[in-house]
Amino acid sequence: MFSDLEEKICTPDQLRPKPDNSALVFGKYFTDHMLEVSWDSKRGWAKPVISPMHNLQLHPGAKVLHYAIELFEGMKAYRGEDGCLRLFRPDKNMARMLSTAKRSSLPTFDAEEMIKCVKRLIQIDKEWVPYSTTSSLYIRPTFIATDPSLGVASPNEALLYVLLCPVGPYFTSGFKPISLMADPQYVRSWPGGCGAMKMGANYAPTIYIQKQSELLGHQQVLWLYGADHQLTEVGTMNIFLFMLNENGERELVTPPLDGLILPGVTRLSLLELAREWKEFRVVERTITMAEVIQAHEEKRLLEIFGAGTACVVCPVSSISYQGREYNIPRSEPSLSQRFLKTMSDIHYGRVQHPWAVDI
Amino acid sequence: MFSDLEEKICTPDQLRPKPDNSALVFGKYFTDHMLEVSWDSKRGWAKPVISPMHNLQLHPGAKVLHYAIELFEGMKAYRGEDGCLRLFRPDKNMARMLSTAKRSSLPTFDAEEMIKCVKRLIQIDKEWVPYSTTSSLYIRPTFIATDPSLGVASPNEALLYVLLCPVGPYFTSGFKPISLMADPQYVRSWPGGCGAMKMGANYAPTIYIQKQSELLGHQQVLWLYGADHQLTEVGTMNIFLFMLNENGERELVTPPLDGLILPGVTRLSLLELAREWKEFRVVERTITMAEVIQAHEEKRLLEIFGAGTACVVCPVSSISYQGREYNIPRSEPSLSQRFLKTMSDIHYGRVQHPWAVDI
Repeated sequence: MFSDLEEKICTPDQLRPKPDNSALVFGKYFTDHMLEVSWDSKRGWAKPVISPMHNLQLHPGAKVLHYAIELFEGMKAYRGEDGCLRLFRPDKNMARMLSTAKRSSLPTFDAEEMIKCVKRLIQIDKEWVPYSTTSSLYIRPTFIATDPSLGVASPNEALLYVLLCPVGPYFTSGFKPISLMADPQYVRSWPGGCGAMKMGANYAPTIYIQKQSELLGHQQVLWLYGADHQLTEVGTMNIFLFMLNENGERELVTPPLDGLILPGVTRLSLLELAREWKEFRVVERTITMAEVIQAHEEKRLLEIFGAGTACVVCPVSSISYQGREYNIPRSEPSLSQRFLKTMSDIHYGRVQHPWAVDI
Repeated sequence: MFSDLEEKICTPDQLRPKPDNSALVFGKYFTDHMLEVSWDSKRGWAKPVISPMHNLQLHPGAKVLHYAIELFEGMKAYRGEDGCLRLFRPDKNMARMLSTAKRSSLPTFDAEEMIKCVKRLIQIDKEWVPYSTTSSLYIRPTFIATDPSLGVASPNEALLYVLLCPVGPYFTSGFKPISLMADPQYVRSWPGGCGAMKMGANYAPTIYIQKQSELLGHQQVLWLYGADHQLTEVGTMNIFLFMLNENGERELVTPPLDGLILPGVTRLSLLELAREWKEFRVVERTITMAEVIQAHEEKRLLEIFGAGTACVVCPVSSISYQGREYNIPRSEPSLSQRFLKTMSDIHYGRVQHPWAVDI
């Protein structure tokens, strides 16, 4: 409970130097404090504690280190042009964290109390929120099973903790479009699996493939699924296609929440914005590489982009697939640019919006 | 390198009490010492160190805690009836560990040097190897990515460590047959994934399903794959079926190494033993639930059992599938019992065999 929160604040000599905004590599710098809440099956949740950033003491037999009983979330806080700090839709991230916790056999918790604790952590480290409208404070709630026992079984001890990282643009190339490798031999998730969960287990297997794509000169993997090569996700983002359908109507297409993809908060927000605009069709449906290629050949493809918390929106310049390189056009005016501007206006308080929550 | 091994041995007051053999729950007790070897991308492997069992100090941003970059192995040492300590086929476990490391973007190492270090660790903790021919010393090599950076990318820092646990029979029911839940809505692995790798990521998603099976009164999950409900693995074991084929010939069937299942060392050993015996057909092939049910109805099913390092051999008493409970017979003489006896004779030095390696 937030009312039980214990605060151990850094002494002045424990404070760390803050990096330049220009040096903000994603996830490399951490702020001065962290939040921890421990749990065990007998006593339930302990009091939340904010304390100086420190190493964790883990038994080498801790379940998280053997069976990957771990999950995380990613959300951001922004310093508005009006000087106010805002969180973006933290309720959505906490709801997803709870559903992942359930699937991971980790305990659930009170999302509202957790948001209050996270807000307090950000207040304490508020000077770490970049004074910049291209940077932000990335918030990483993490939840791990800590009991020291090698049985493959539900955990009896766990630790939920929250780290904060000042971050610049996710891709070092900034808003520059990225090139994708689409190779159906690699499959990220599958029906009956956990692809819709933000579990650590979904990430480890992707890193080797990501490296393969880099060796071939691409920046990210476009994950396909099934004999018909359905598009699912791109790297760690949801994917959007803006195109003319066969009737010549403009259509924003993104794969459905069928269990294969992560239900992204940015994905949801872009869909909600587009549906509010009512300027083009907005469709959640399965889309295959054959359809993409046909649309490409018929010059009906207007734009492809990824969407996620880390990058917000990231345009795609090309897809390498079955020995061919497909260059993806970029419509003018660019829809991804418009989304980015709309989201940024909300993030940085240029417009008032219920998604931006005061800290 | 083994020649660089540094040893920090417990002082007498650091030694832990050893549990009774009757109390040996799997993976609950750890010996006095552990082996650690750290790696970083600039300096490569550090010297291996054996030191008193201790907690790890991990940065809360360590990649293992977020993206499940972690893998493990499981092998055993046995105290022979002749008093000698033996390892069972450690070269096979180390080869699998290397292939998992590669797929996990973790560095490779010299398997023979690693086995020498593990042997030394066991020698130091040799009094922990149970004086029992139903118990053994479980060896848990573990390999985790430790660099404190939230980028989803190859690790630059890692730690390989080895824990030892005295263990009794894996299932508290001993060699008693177990009941299985086979529910095709849950899928453990899939083509294009990592089901053949001993990564932590393969285990976290199974725990919730295992709990579901327990709530329904079963002991383990029989993992199915595909529209035709192929049998893949049972719990954390490979699966074997001993049956009469449609020509009335006795046949030992186990699913093939098609990427969906773990290439078990016990699986390999049972196949090699059976092929040496030349008493019945030995077949690695896909087998579906429809075939199992047909064989069950035609009374051609002789025995089903799981095989793995933790349990060696574990007979199956029943399978719950699509609303029906199929009782699995047990042939007399029992093949699983024969396998267990043959393996135990090798493990405990009752026969000389090249698979049992002196420590």
